[in-house]
Amino acid sequence: MRRTIDFLLGDWLGIAELLERPRFADHSRETFAQVLDTCERIARERYAPFNRLVDTEEPRFDGERVILPQATHAAWAAYAESGMLSASQDQNIGGMQLPYTVEAAANGFFGKASVSIGGGLLTVGNANLLMAHGTAAQKEVFALNEFSGRWCGTMCLSEPQAGSSLSDVATRAEPDGADFEADPLGPRFRLTGNKMWISAGEHELTENIVHLVLAKIPGPDGKPVPGTKGISLFVVPKKLVNTRGELTGERNDVALAGLNHKCGWRGTTNTLLNFGEGKFTPGGKRGAIGYLVGRPGEGLRCMFHMMNEARIGVGMAATMLGMAGYEASLDYAKQRPQGRPVTEGGKKADAPQVPIIQHADVKRMLLAQKSYAEGALALELYCARLVDEQHTGEADSAREAALLLEVLTPIAKSWPSEWCVEANSLAIQVLGGYGYTRDFPVEQYWRDNRLNMIHEGTHGIQALDLLGRKVVMDGGAGLKLVAGRVNRTIERALQVDHLADHASALAAALQRLGAATKAAWASGVPEEALANATPYLQAFGHLVLAWIWLDVGLAARERLAADDAFFRGKLQACRYFFDYELPKIDAWLAVVASRNPTCREMREEWF
Amino acid sequence: MRRTIDFLLGDWLGIAELLERPRFADHSRETFAQVLDTCERIARERYAPFNRLVDTEEPRFDGERVILPQATHAAWAAYAESGMLSASQDQNIGGMQLPYTVEAAANGFFGKASVSIGGGLLTVGNANLLMAHGTAAQKEVFALNEFSGRWCGTMCLSEPQAGSSLSDVATRAEPDGADFEADPLGPRFRLTGNKMWISAGEHELTENIVHLVLAKIPGPDGKPVPGTKGISLFVVPKKLVNTRGELTGERNDVALAGLNHKCGWRGTTNTLLNFGEGKFTPGGKRGAIGYLVGRPGEGLRCMFHMMNEARIGVGMAATMLGMAGYEASLDYAKQRPQGRPVTEGGKKADAPQVPIIQHADVKRMLLAQKSYAEGALALELYCARLVDEQHTGEADSAREAALLLEVLTPIAKSWPSEWCVEANSLAIQVLGGYGYTRDFPVEQYWRDNRLNMIHEGTHGIQALDLLGRKVVMDGGAGLKLVAGRVNRTIERALQVDHLADHASALAAALQRLGAATKAAWASGVPEEALANATPYLQAFGHLVLAWIWLDVGLAARERLAADDAFFRGKLQACRYFFDYELPKIDAWLAVVASRNPTCREMREEWF
Repeated sequence: MRRTIDFLLGDWLGIAELLERPRFADHSRETFAQVLDTCERIARERYAPFNRLVDTEEPRFDGERVILPQATHAAWAAYAESGMLSASQDQNIGGMQLPYTVEAAANGFFGKASVSIGGGLLTVGNANLLMAHGTAAQKEVFALNEFSGRWCGTMCLSEPQAGSSLSDVATRAEPDGADFEADPLGPRFRLTGNKMWISAGEHELTENIVHLVLAKIPGPDGKPVPGTKGISLFVVPKKLVNTRGELTGERNDVALAGLNHKCGWRGTTNTLLNFGEGKFTPGGKRGAIGYLVGRPGEGLRCMFHMMNEARIGVGMAATMLGMAGYEASLDYAKQRPQGRPVTEGGKKADAPQVPIIQHADVKRMLLAQKSYAEGALALELYCARLVDEQHTGEADSAREAALLLEVLTPIAKSWPSEWCVEANSLAIQVLGGYGYTRDFPVEQYWRDNRLNMIHEGTHGIQALDLLGRKVVMDGGAGLKLVAGRVNRTIERALQVDHLADHASALAAALQRLGAATKAAWASGVPEEALANATPYLQAFGHLVLAWIWLDVGLAARERLAADDAFFRGKLQACRYFFDYELPKIDAWLAVVASRNPTCREMREEWF
Repeated sequence: MRRTIDFLLGDWLGIAELLERPRFADHSRETFAQVLDTCERIARERYAPFNRLVDTEEPRFDGERVILPQATHAAWAAYAESGMLSASQDQNIGGMQLPYTVEAAANGFFGKASVSIGGGLLTVGNANLLMAHGTAAQKEVFALNEFSGRWCGTMCLSEPQAGSSLSDVATRAEPDGADFEADPLGPRFRLTGNKMWISAGEHELTENIVHLVLAKIPGPDGKPVPGTKGISLFVVPKKLVNTRGELTGERNDVALAGLNHKCGWRGTTNTLLNFGEGKFTPGGKRGAIGYLVGRPGEGLRCMFHMMNEARIGVGMAATMLGMAGYEASLDYAKQRPQGRPVTEGGKKADAPQVPIIQHADVKRMLLAQKSYAEGALALELYCARLVDEQHTGEADSAREAALLLEVLTPIAKSWPSEWCVEANSLAIQVLGGYGYTRDFPVEQYWRDNRLNMIHEGTHGIQALDLLGRKVVMDGGAGLKLVAGRVNRTIERALQVDHLADHASALAAALQRLGAATKAAWASGVPEEALANATPYLQAFGHLVLAWIWLDVGLAARERLAADDAFFRGKLQACRYFFDYELPKIDAWLAVVASRNPTCREMREEWF
């Protein structure tokens, strides 16, 4: 995989261009490579060997503490020590001031080695959010202690009755005393409510945990404001701290209500947390103390500020699981003798068996995995590069990057979540019976990966976001921009032998996608258009991946002389995607374009 | 589900016709219904409540015995007591003389309640095989004691180095002494070798276990004959028995070498067995005693005699897991409030949330599951009905049924194995985060179901069987026969409002499938045709299911007046399949018809 990352970053995305920007001027190709080397090494030494262990030894609660395997403590320590928690922060606060693209690629190694142990995704997201929206004191006290690895962070959005529908958040935040606005850590509230699916919500990896919590401040009538407009954001430490970031010794009123026992991704604690149940009573009063972050009612806006990176993070996790399964099944296929070439069947029964990688159907399963995992990797890195462009590019270019990200993020999140699970299933299939046992790693990849279609916005939510908002906003400006980029690749590929056919196929697909988008909205009735949002998301995703593969193919073709086998492999995966995958979009687009009513007209009593 | 089974058996397949045949003359609609009632009840009481338990408390070996939960013992006892082990046997040996169609449907309840506890599939298959190929003594001693539930049976085919490639079986069988042919239980051999993936290979559910083992008898040169021609079949009891079926007190030389720890289906013990390692030495000699069944070298032929039913059994297991997930997610969707109708988003934020079944995308996920699981159920019962026709129909009709089964069996095995896993994934998705936890049953269904694409011939093997043998044999006679049946349904549906469009779509699909089949073989080069055998299998499967749905739709349409909601549901699932699923075949057939070389031309060093 490293070779592929180097090619994608160095050759395809031309990451070295970023070195010319003031923010990255202290870096060089060498420092980028060192970061990748370090992460690859830590992942190999501290993560990969323990991936099965953390699946078997789930977090457990002894009544007082959540106990994790020692390996998880060691992995966290090594991760924190690597400096990756503040990879993209300014150097003057101890950060590495790295491009996000390099950070994302480097974090990939941990996801591949053990997504279940996990890196610092939530902690970094939490701290980044505080850097963007917090007060100086909140940054100093909370964010900096997260970047250093002293404390971990969480994101507390969902509740048992409010998962996809965040507007139904019921956690209440009431001003804590008359002087509540005078607290040096920010306006002080008391929170009561329950938060569900909170990853790393309770553990002893660090001396404290910094929860970022969505809650509603009651209006003048004492009732929470309905809808998302009523939601505010609070920083709620597990243990109370003073303005110097020291623990006061007092426990905040946040208590573990239960551990969730998952199908996979078992190394990461997932919790139900009770806020303000009175198990602890800071200052002698019930209610978890939380400090307002940003303005009241702008909680979701603050959260969404970080959403693109969070969703790229999920997409990257899914991608890396796909990659892990691909590599494991490739190794197996090279070594497992079974059967004989199809032409000789029966004729040479006494000939030795051949490694299964020689069978066309096994090559098909490996090529599919390669096209899914490496294609997804290219997409995630492309989106990461857009994040850098948004933050450090020229104004026009930054605006364009931001708009592209709006449209591509639902794909970056959803596509690997769906197709890299399929890749993992194919990895199991390559290993046959062995793949179905826990003696081999592939079944765990498949289980771990199944979460990615659910968290950070389900597939259905991504689909509504794409067809309901992203492709129609600003008169379709985002969609036009994507189409422009796709057409640029098509035009280049039309000039190149062997890629011209793919270019034509992509052009036709793009035309069909555009027509289907228009047709979906032709009646102007949202429920008619959106009933087929998921097939639309799937078709859009496959088109984007075909475009990415064609663009990667162009880069590969130029470099054939440098390493024939490596680049032929990329071109063959590209070809696989065009021959076997892109044609799938017609079936999806057909229901979109016809505003097929079969699903929405189905009635409960008919099931 | 019961309602659907009654409709499919009673109305669609007209199972009552079988009552006119002499073999089933003692039966009535009522006795058929009683069998279904009994199995449904036992499954509900003895299986379903323990499905999670057997997932958690895996079989373990204490050094001497394999320990299973008490619930598994109770379930086996109830199953044996039901008489289902000899459901299709003659009444004069204590059987129920039931049609296989009724037996298969009744067994479905156990698969749905707990596929992992399992019913008697292997024991029945083993005993049936002995009834077909064994000597009178072998039937009396082994088969009858399996039908009564006194002993269990296994099928020992695979070895660690020989999974899909059975011709590489290395277990040896050598004549046991000069008088080896004189043993009243059959020619006596000594077996040495290892057998892998043996389900129920060791346990204490019954006092003995009857292994049916494939092994090779060395030729005159002392070497095993290469290829499948050298394979013979042996009955190898775990504990030796005399001709009266009494245990002699001596243990045969078969020893547990290891338990396999699976991703799912954990309630069923899966083992590596050593034959003849000398742990036990019956008669003071090393080597497991086995009695030849059928003629030397005809082991595989004997096994394949039972293959259609075994593969229908796997397809039915996959189907029932799909059905279980569908029902669980349907229940959840009716009760889980989340979100509001898409048109009112933002407008009525203070309106109460609606049950998620009201969202079009959730209906889509439920309709997909319904179309997969109920479609698969119809297919399995159709194939089961063909088994009855083959065994009890008029000569011409029996021949035709046998030929249809040859072509449809790879689909009956593979299609539910693939699409009912997808159904289970959709069930998880409907439940969201909850679906990913072990507090709900759907993640287990998904894990359990993943095995079905692997055992009893992998997907790839089914595909080679279909495109490499079944559709080309006898000049394509089998394919023509299937096409004839499909066309009959098309002709009827063309006359019916609302179904005529589906009929036209199916006719076009059938034409494309025929053309692709021809094109695949146009060059006459097996590796060109077979490189895309799996996409062919997928396309063929979807076409068969579309046909099944159209035919079921015709039956539903005629009965609308009887129960509008129930039959509208069938018609809507049919419509879903035609609108969302059948169009997928174009992408699969395109690579088949063009003999796409991308996979077979891929080289190991390019990966």
